[in-house]
Amino acid sequence: MGAVTTADRVPKQDRSRATRQRLLAAAVACLAEHGWAGSTVSAVAERAGVSRGAAQHHFPTREDLFTAAVEYVAEERSLALRALFPEGTTAADRPAVVTALVDLYTGPLFRAALHLWVAASNEEQLRGRVTELEARVGRETHRIAVDLLTADERRPGVRETVQGLLDMARGLGLANLLTDDTVRRARVVDQWAALMEETLG
Amino acid sequence: MGAVTTADRVPKQDRSRATRQRLLAAAVACLAEHGWAGSTVSAVAERAGVSRGAAQHHFPTREDLFTAAVEYVAEERSLALRALFPEGTTAADRPAVVTALVDLYTGPLFRAALHLWVAASNEEQLRGRVTELEARVGRETHRIAVDLLTADERRPGVRETVQGLLDMARGLGLANLLTDDTVRRARVVDQWAALMEETLG
Repeated sequence: MGAVTTADRVPKQDRSRATRQRLLAAAVACLAEHGWAGSTVSAVAERAGVSRGAAQHHFPTREDLFTAAVEYVAEERSLALRALFPEGTTAADRPAVVTALVDLYTGPLFRAALHLWVAASNEEQLRGRVTELEARVGRETHRIAVDLLTADERRPGVRETVQGLLDMARGLGLANLLTDDTVRRARVVDQWAALMEETLG
Repeated sequence: MGAVTTADRVPKQDRSRATRQRLLAAAVACLAEHGWAGSTVSAVAERAGVSRGAAQHHFPTREDLFTAAVEYVAEERSLALRALFPEGTTAADRPAVVTALVDLYTGPLFRAALHLWVAASNEEQLRGRVTELEARVGRETHRIAVDLLTADERRPGVRETVQGLLDMARGLGLANLLTDDTVRRARVVDQWAALMEETLG
């Protein structure tokens, strides 16, 4: 065991972080494509080009790997959402914000999260973890939505209006699971964005 | 092979229909509790107290059984929804109608349908069947919603408002999957029912 210099240590940490991120990305893709039943640590390690041992070093259990993966991508997605409006927003940006919020629930991340969510409804080992994860991700998404919509939650009905929008967004994500629902979704979102103005003012 | 009289035939048809309905109810319960991976024809036959052969006589494939089960219960549910308002409805009934519509998406049937839906997103054999089933059930639910809400779809925005309500209802169903979301849901539904009045008039 020779002395480890700072120069040695940094690249090793970088490599470890890169491996971790490759595993997380592979786990989300695996969940989205094969569902929970087809998602194992081995399958993800192979997809990421990482040994099973290295994968287990980062994530001791299957539950650790997949909940971390959904959380990681949810965080990335939140950053990307805020990055869409680098100067912040005004009430005039609301239609664009509503569209961006709804877009969070189409695509592979929502599909991956949905698989985890549905599996957790029957699997005791997953249930507690996923419940807690969803609460955390849900709170963060609500916070971003309130912020970007410049919604004043002290006004009556505002909090429930924003919550209902996010519930609708999740429902629209479900409707897009088996078929391309883009055209219908745009019309529904336009109408509901207009209705929201009544409360948001 | 003696001659079959009408008296013989009717009870036999009744027995066959009763067996079929027991299988369908058992299939929905099995899906809701164990998900698609844990739902086989054998498991359902055992739960229904029917032989595997008899189950396969009614439903030759696993896909036949589970799509028929979700469709059957969706139909029962539609009948129950209409039966809540035997005299029809007026605009004054809208809050009660919205609540009843949202209630369609909590409970075991929604959980069963969700399992089938999510499984279909990864399994080619299921995908076509479930896509077609969901389109049919979705159209029927929309028709009932328009009718009970006394919504005039010729007016601008009305169709999209009703669609958005049903999308929100599905999203609320998801939010209720892992935790009891009853209290929050009631507040969201109240707020959006009030907003909808703006369009429905």
